[in-house]
Amino acid sequence: MIYKRIDQADLKVLESIINDSERILYGTQINEEFSHDELSGTESYPDVVVKIRSAQEASQILKYANQEKISVTPRGAGTGLVGAAVAIEHGIMIDTTLMNHFLELDEENLTLTLEPGVLLMDLAAYVEPKGLFYPPDPGEKSATIGGNISTNAGGMRAVKYGVTRDFVRGLEVILPTGEIVDFGGKIVKNSSGYAMKDLMVGSEGTLGIVTKAILKLLPLPKKTISLLIPFPTLRQAIGTAPLIIKSRAIPTAIEFMEREVIMDSEEYLGKKFPDNQSDAYLLLKFDGNSTEEIENTYDSVAKICLEQGALDILIADTDERNESIWKARGSFLEAIKGSTTYMDEVDIVVPRNRINAFVEYTHSLQKEIGLRIKSFGHAGDGNLHAYILKDDLSDTIWQERLSLAMEKMYAKAHELDGQVSGEHGIGFAKRSYLNESIQPEIIGLMQGIKHVFDPNNILNPHKVCED
Amino acid sequence: MIYKRIDQADLKVLESIINDSERILYGTQINEEFSHDELSGTESYPDVVVKIRSAQEASQILKYANQEKISVTPRGAGTGLVGAAVAIEHGIMIDTTLMNHFLELDEENLTLTLEPGVLLMDLAAYVEPKGLFYPPDPGEKSATIGGNISTNAGGMRAVKYGVTRDFVRGLEVILPTGEIVDFGGKIVKNSSGYAMKDLMVGSEGTLGIVTKAILKLLPLPKKTISLLIPFPTLRQAIGTAPLIIKSRAIPTAIEFMEREVIMDSEEYLGKKFPDNQSDAYLLLKFDGNSTEEIENTYDSVAKICLEQGALDILIADTDERNESIWKARGSFLEAIKGSTTYMDEVDIVVPRNRINAFVEYTHSLQKEIGLRIKSFGHAGDGNLHAYILKDDLSDTIWQERLSLAMEKMYAKAHELDGQVSGEHGIGFAKRSYLNESIQPEIIGLMQGIKHVFDPNNILNPHKVCED
Repeated sequence: MIYKRIDQADLKVLESIINDSERILYGTQINEEFSHDELSGTESYPDVVVKIRSAQEASQILKYANQEKISVTPRGAGTGLVGAAVAIEHGIMIDTTLMNHFLELDEENLTLTLEPGVLLMDLAAYVEPKGLFYPPDPGEKSATIGGNISTNAGGMRAVKYGVTRDFVRGLEVILPTGEIVDFGGKIVKNSSGYAMKDLMVGSEGTLGIVTKAILKLLPLPKKTISLLIPFPTLRQAIGTAPLIIKSRAIPTAIEFMEREVIMDSEEYLGKKFPDNQSDAYLLLKFDGNSTEEIENTYDSVAKICLEQGALDILIADTDERNESIWKARGSFLEAIKGSTTYMDEVDIVVPRNRINAFVEYTHSLQKEIGLRIKSFGHAGDGNLHAYILKDDLSDTIWQERLSLAMEKMYAKAHELDGQVSGEHGIGFAKRSYLNESIQPEIIGLMQGIKHVFDPNNILNPHKVCED
Repeated sequence: MIYKRIDQADLKVLESIINDSERILYGTQINEEFSHDELSGTESYPDVVVKIRSAQEASQILKYANQEKISVTPRGAGTGLVGAAVAIEHGIMIDTTLMNHFLELDEENLTLTLEPGVLLMDLAAYVEPKGLFYPPDPGEKSATIGGNISTNAGGMRAVKYGVTRDFVRGLEVILPTGEIVDFGGKIVKNSSGYAMKDLMVGSEGTLGIVTKAILKLLPLPKKTISLLIPFPTLRQAIGTAPLIIKSRAIPTAIEFMEREVIMDSEEYLGKKFPDNQSDAYLLLKFDGNSTEEIENTYDSVAKICLEQGALDILIADTDERNESIWKARGSFLEAIKGSTTYMDEVDIVVPRNRINAFVEYTHSLQKEIGLRIKSFGHAGDGNLHAYILKDDLSDTIWQERLSLAMEKMYAKAHELDGQVSGEHGIGFAKRSYLNESIQPEIIGLMQGIKHVFDPNNILNPHKVCED
């Protein structure tokens, strides 16, 4: 399909919709950052960037684009890792970052209504002093909530609390044809037709543009304690996670990390991690309403860890110690990025008792293919981030080996009953792997759904299920 | 569309697929119960009932039906309330009740894989002695898990734990065209394309037939305490629920009930309720891992109730007392049914601080229209069940007044930012109300999705979004 490129006449129409020239960037006004995201290696400039302030603006733009067959790419803070927010067909980029207002905190329904451009860090800062809690906790705090909704972002607290979809109650969405619709609402239950709200979450900006969200909040747990637990081997560390789950304890988070990644983080942050003497670590978090309540749980978990060969149990029970550990954990992606010339990642998810099999496979792949792979991730929910590093490989060799490594890792994940992406999405970069890993009938259903929402295929083309 | 009716040649094909004549019921072998469900007033006989034992059987039947344009209606225990499992176009009814096996309990992933015909009561009896917990808790324990998945059943513990969709990790589904597909899996996170698993849950047997489900389990809370709290007025009782939520306490359940319904239940069960002296009650449940942990929470909640005018706080802290109260609560639907000649229901859901406005409206409607309306429901999650009673009205007057009452109640729910169904679904009986309450663009999207899954419209036609 040929998309119309933006010309002066289109610009005039956009100016008449927006009526604020500072919110329309064209040609050389478009900063290089709008041509890519954080990782995927995908690069393409939009013809024009429009910073919207309202659903009505988005609606009018989409109506016009749909009529003229101009492609439209929604974008939040641009922190994605799979190219979902890159304007492959140029056209119009709709930037939501100015729509960053909190609209209503409803304490009787424990909901927060907000615009899509609110940053995760601002969301936490808004609700937590009020004793409220938005549990999804991806490492990247400068992502927008709209972006988190687009990828169904997971994060570290998924073990206990679930993922973004579980905390979205309602959405205002602009359909690709320009209509403004509401899916869900402040309601707790809903069996009124198909699960449109759930379908919209995780659709990576291909089915509609979110202009308002109603989030579910929880009471903020009064107390949080983290345990950093060194193990002699990564195998023992990761192997302990399913045993913790089997013991009927549900920590808030169970993360695993290797010494190498901790060293990268120390270098990146310029700050010592509490311990870096062991090859591997589990990092556990527990929350609850009292120290006693938490201690009951973590005592039994600590015992399991020691039985599995843990070398020590380091307890972080002050806010400062907690924060320093989790800040280091939050820096891992950037730290690994800083330790090499270039990298790509897989974000596979497997049943949590299969992570060891996957990690061991990546270790053997390093030798087999001849490149470095570093990993860390969520032992408690089976979601692993493995980074394939270019280091000083030539472009040609890198491309060859990267392709081979990717293909083999995704095939392994599939063999272990896993899926291509746990939380980063498919976007542009991972389409072929999605395509290979799920049944063609399912890809066909997804393409059919896309066509129902977007008959002219103008919204975020070439993403997710589209070849 | 004209559907082919079953003839002898079709029967022969079905017999060759099933190869067990006892699992095929035809003509007079079909019991009257297969012509209706529990409430909706919808009646229609299938031409043939096939009791399947495997996904392969379902797949072959659907392939044949799709090719011959025979309608297929999936059915579990037939406990639905909106006619979703009634064979409007006759054809083939696929009965899943013989597929009632537990397939795998995976304690390291806390998942239970099972067939769709397992009954809710058997599910609880299977997991709870092992210290595990499947939280969704609809009143009807003889429903199948397949039926619960079809309607995205909610139940009483939704306040704290959520609904069926939140506890389904993976599904094996037979598409209307006969392909066997897997959505989701044992994985905790998933951002690999559109939310097919979530879309399937709550689709009321119109998008596919579920032949296997992977459920998420939790550790069973060690201790449960219920509080029965009499109030002088229903308004005070219901008005207290949002204040409890606002106080940052999250009980497992917050139910409301009126004396009249309690009396119906006493008569129905032949057993006294612990108290029936007050006009209205809140019934609260708390769970946790120790009595102290629970007491901390319920002390503060009891205080709020007393401040709002509660007359007493009756504590049920033994299994027996707990069970007797919740058994009575579970009987309300049948008890009300037994108190009149015929009835119909609305299952609306509103933000939880709008229930009082809705209940007061139903009270005023009784006088305005001239029929009795009884209600009870989930104060904690905004889901209200209101039953409109025929009593000794003539059929003509009943139909007139019922239609008027339904229309007005659904309009009121919409005005209060609510939806048509919280947990019972749309099925056949509530289609016009869904149609009136959501935007036509959304109905159009739902119809488009139905067409993608079922291009020949053979699976459960005339349900949910289909006129």
